[in-house]
Amino acid sequence: MARGPLPMSDAPLVAGVELGGTKCVCLLASGPADIRGEVRVPTRGPTETLAAIEAVLRQWHTEHGFRALGLASFGPLDLEPRSASFGCIVGTPKRAWEHVALLPRARAFTVPVGIDTDVNGAALAEGLWGGARGLESWAYVTVGTGIGVGSIVAGAPVRGLGHAEAGHQRVPRLASEHWPGSCPFHGDCAEGLASGPAIQARAGLPFADLAADHPVWNEVVHALAGLLHNLILTVVPERILVGGGVVLGQPTLLPRIRLALQASLGDYGHVGRSVLTEQYLSTPVLGERAGPLGAIALAHRALQ
Amino acid sequence: MARGPLPMSDAPLVAGVELGGTKCVCLLASGPADIRGEVRVPTRGPTETLAAIEAVLRQWHTEHGFRALGLASFGPLDLEPRSASFGCIVGTPKRAWEHVALLPRARAFTVPVGIDTDVNGAALAEGLWGGARGLESWAYVTVGTGIGVGSIVAGAPVRGLGHAEAGHQRVPRLASEHWPGSCPFHGDCAEGLASGPAIQARAGLPFADLAADHPVWNEVVHALAGLLHNLILTVVPERILVGGGVVLGQPTLLPRIRLALQASLGDYGHVGRSVLTEQYLSTPVLGERAGPLGAIALAHRALQ
Repeated sequence: MARGPLPMSDAPLVAGVELGGTKCVCLLASGPADIRGEVRVPTRGPTETLAAIEAVLRQWHTEHGFRALGLASFGPLDLEPRSASFGCIVGTPKRAWEHVALLPRARAFTVPVGIDTDVNGAALAEGLWGGARGLESWAYVTVGTGIGVGSIVAGAPVRGLGHAEAGHQRVPRLASEHWPGSCPFHGDCAEGLASGPAIQARAGLPFADLAADHPVWNEVVHALAGLLHNLILTVVPERILVGGGVVLGQPTLLPRIRLALQASLGDYGHVGRSVLTEQYLSTPVLGERAGPLGAIALAHRALQ
Repeated sequence: MARGPLPMSDAPLVAGVELGGTKCVCLLASGPADIRGEVRVPTRGPTETLAAIEAVLRQWHTEHGFRALGLASFGPLDLEPRSASFGCIVGTPKRAWEHVALLPRARAFTVPVGIDTDVNGAALAEGLWGGARGLESWAYVTVGTGIGVGSIVAGAPVRGLGHAEAGHQRVPRLASEHWPGSCPFHGDCAEGLASGPAIQARAGLPFADLAADHPVWNEVVHALAGLLHNLILTVVPERILVGGGVVLGQPTLLPRIRLALQASLGDYGHVGRSVLTEQYLSTPVLGERAGPLGAIALAHRALQ
């Protein structure tokens, strides 16, 4: 199943909503080259926020008649189709959003609806229009407020006991490091060591204000190399796109991670250092648009 | 795609070969309840070993006419269908076996041939006839001479940049532990800390001779809990079956791993400690037969 970009001229007009922790982005588009509408809604309580999003969608639906709707949301989400809470937010630290029924509400538009996590959506968008075109297996990693990983296997997001949460992997520490980490669930998991808030808690400054040679980057590099080592050996992606504010904001980081990862993988068979070309481990092509375009990608999948 | 056991009465007769480091097992069967032939061949050099296996298969083919052939092999294997060395052993530490063309040789039997790693085969066998029946997503983990992990996503083994090698994940160490590990590629990866040879190198005794309270088990438990934590968060299997000589030979081990894993996962959303029932993390139902029946499962898949 080799897959290329959708033929833009024939791609149907769809709507997508990326629900994020601070803002929600609504798009009306057939793809990145044909964006007909874009509205940002600040993320407040669910009642107010969803009412504002629905007003945007209703107007677009009336005026343009979009063919499908995609929802790319922060999680955790219930993505088990047989579950009573399918398509709802579950067990999030954002208590007001717990049990919010995204998919059931979206069905009011009587078009096919696709829903997945924000990172799985972004991964799919990179597959359709970005840095993973033509691949069957790839991963999208974002290191920012948290660490999100979207893994695509055989062209579809990994699904099992719900969706994956591979940013919370357990990774080795540097020998001299004992800081307990900032993850409220796992302490020093990868997200607890290398996310933006973790770096700020550790260094006492926002990550954007840290010099490239600040010692906190040593453990960030080590933790992210450990995460990527495990991701490569577990889901063997054909390419990994790494973005998010932390990685994009500190240009020395990805080259350092690549070196640490080469040392970590060593010369191990088909998953050794030789796979780590610059193309293999690179930044997302769609940049900040990967998130909202992920919702558009989910809408297109809902039509298939 | 809910999948149950094959209907045994209608299942075709197929042949399977499990190629292992010390022995190869040839089976003629339609499934575990209908085994018509079983021949063991010691693993020596490839020329001698494969000739002996082919003699067994040729006789079965002439006398019974099996419909398909499955090969479940130690690896690494080239499993990329577009590759010139598809179905060959690649880059193995067993130098004499490097570049041995398993699949091309097997095609001489002019029946459909399925090939995968031994652990992916065993995982599929557990899905058809064992502890993962009816699931779409599961994992089979064996802790013995090495650590092997077969991950099934949407009913198929995870495939990308070749097959996975998730036994070589990087995992955290206990704070007091600095033994360098026994993996020739990664030092203290999970296999380098918790495989049988690692335990023996560490303790100076074979793992079967160690008391349940020997201190070496502490880091074995810690490493395997780390590996399973990461496996759960990355491929979210609906069930994990853990076997192999080390786990089956030390009955206190799996309960200790379960406790450590509960502590590690904490109360994190849909992938927290609450998923860890005894059924979720259990031993393979097919026991030592999972390996050779894996080859039979691969033969059945080749017919689909």
